Amino acid sequence: MELQQTNGTLVSFRPDIKVVDCTLRDGGLVNNFYFSDEFVKDLYHMNVAAGVDYMEFGYKASKAIFQEKEFGPWKFCKDSDIRAVVGDNKTELKISVMADVGRTDYKKDILPRKDSPIDMIRVATYTNTIPAAIAMIEDAKRKGYETTVNIMAVSKVNEDDLNNGLEILAKSSVDAIYLVDSFGAFYPEQIRRLTSRYLEIGAKSGKKIGIHAHNNQQLAFANTIESLSLGTSFLDATVSGMGRGAGNCYLESLLGFLRNPKYNLIPVMEFVEKHILKLKAEGNEWGYDLPYLLTGILNSHPSSAIKCIKEKRTDYSRFYQELLDETF
Amino acid sequence: MELQQTNGTLVSFRPDIKVVDCTLRDGGLVNNFYFSDEFVKDLYHMNVAAGVDYMEFGYKASKAIFQEKEFGPWKFCKDSDIRAVVGDNKTELKISVMADVGRTDYKKDILPRKDSPIDMIRVATYTNTIPAAIAMIEDAKRKGYETTVNIMAVSKVNEDDLNNGLEILAKSSVDAIYLVDSFGAFYPEQIRRLTSRYLEIGAKSGKKIGIHAHNNQQLAFANTIESLSLGTSFLDATVSGMGRGAGNCYLESLLGFLRNPKYNLIPVMEFVEKHILKLKAEGNEWGYDLPYLLTGILNSHPSSAIKCIKEKRTDYSRFYQELLDETF
Repeated sequence: MELQQTNGTLVSFRPDIKVVDCTLRDGGLVNNFYFSDEFVKDLYHMNVAAGVDYMEFGYKASKAIFQEKEFGPWKFCKDSDIRAVVGDNKTELKISVMADVGRTDYKKDILPRKDSPIDMIRVATYTNTIPAAIAMIEDAKRKGYETTVNIMAVSKVNEDDLNNGLEILAKSSVDAIYLVDSFGAFYPEQIRRLTSRYLEIGAKSGKKIGIHAHNNQQLAFANTIESLSLGTSFLDATVSGMGRGAGNCYLESLLGFLRNPKYNLIPVMEFVEKHILKLKAEGNEWGYDLPYLLTGILNSHPSSAIKCIKEKRTDYSRFYQELLDETF
Repeated sequence: MELQQTNGTLVSFRPDIKVVDCTLRDGGLVNNFYFSDEFVKDLYHMNVAAGVDYMEFGYKASKAIFQEKEFGPWKFCKDSDIRAVVGDNKTELKISVMADVGRTDYKKDILPRKDSPIDMIRVATYTNTIPAAIAMIEDAKRKGYETTVNIMAVSKVNEDDLNNGLEILAKSSVDAIYLVDSFGAFYPEQIRRLTSRYLEIGAKSGKKIGIHAHNNQQLAFANTIESLSLGTSFLDATVSGMGRGAGNCYLESLLGFLRNPKYNLIPVMEFVEKHILKLKAEGNEWGYDLPYLLTGILNSHPSSAIKCIKEKRTDYSRFYQELLDETF
């Protein structure tokens, strides 16, 4: 039996690896971005101490589309709010924010990098809005930022559309292209095939590849390290998997796996003890549960599972029937 | 990049696959085998309806070593207790029990198969007790049973000892040899390498291979399907991952993954709703938590993590230091 050729093994050193902490951004979808100032400051110091490469503060969302009073500040990530946490950020940790195609006033709200504490702009797009994403990427590039593009919901996209989108992005200025498993629907063997395709296009065009996984089937960590082992560089995770619905790849698991001595798990444990247990005790809910498994298996948006759990429904087989009725 | 050669893909039909429900046996380690009669009967009917291949009732433990009054009946699995649930078991579901080397009076307590409702004897052993395990296997074979051997704690064993043990077992009458990740310490790429070795030896000697995974790093399901994709046939799982500490591979996830139409997830959901939620509400604790991740990362026995959680300790970084002090 022939073993798979991988880029690196468990013990190999991969200096190209970049860990991106998305706790505020994906976790903000749990609590509408209402994090305490202490949470955010401690998370920043945790990331610095843990050797994490990027900390994503949240979204650059349009204040014309979203009401400021309905969300905590990290929905909008004003530069002044970030600066209140990081000062001039004289650390190795870089700062990123996400901007959704069609939901951001990027021309106005994203300042030139030299005037901003932000280092990287991550553009989130669907395949059918890739041209608009490229306009945002080129704008950010001109302003001096590192950029990534996160193509969402690819488990719903046909192969031609995905290949076409990847080819267009390969010609853009973007630094990294993310494989995103929005619905937690992929198994490792599918991640393997998709990662290979992304890496092939990335190798041709000089782009790094990233992975952003969700935990509907308890595969977020497994899928992340599967993709990593093939050559993916940018790895998204959140503390204790905090994120919408089933949540994300656990930063604890990821740092425990990576053998690069720059990463340190201790500060993350201390943060969990101080902040995450409290958030959970206050009623913030996320993480694997049976309804998320079912939307994952059916490759469905997790919103119905989130609703099921919020309503404390436990009639799982009936819920599954409803999902089937909506799906087929 | 060359893709790994696998035995089957996501959609392929693998008639050799056997799903083994270990809920009573591994779950019994959570509640000392005190399951209600209704739980056990409903689990049996669930497994029949779900198309599960084997249901493991528990241990054939020695009543000379263990006090009957300190455990529920499934620690001992008297044939009469099993028969009270399954009658003559006129179903496709087969019945298994586990017997630990050195903790069983197998000669006396395991009756000839023709007189017993049990179909399969699973022998659990460490590498250094394999000769004793073989005596048990040959006894069970003579009595007419199917047999498996589960070599525990292989993450602690050096390669020579493991290879030696596998070669000896290859010459025995055992039907299947299990790869067991007792401490939830293995990553998928290690499971891949080990599975390949087990399969190689199994192919030479006509033995099937099985996988029994634990969820310390939230990898039990991922490791199970990784091993399966290479050719492993016997797949252990428990309802909602019920099992000691971090628990096991979730039967829900596994049946949701397998494409063989004989498997049916609906009865499992109904069982979760009726029984598992109640068990949890009554204070039975299992499933992923940070202390289990730490013992998994350090390849340690989960007992210290179980104690940490029982004592409601949340000083994770201190607990980690204690583990390190014990380990190195």
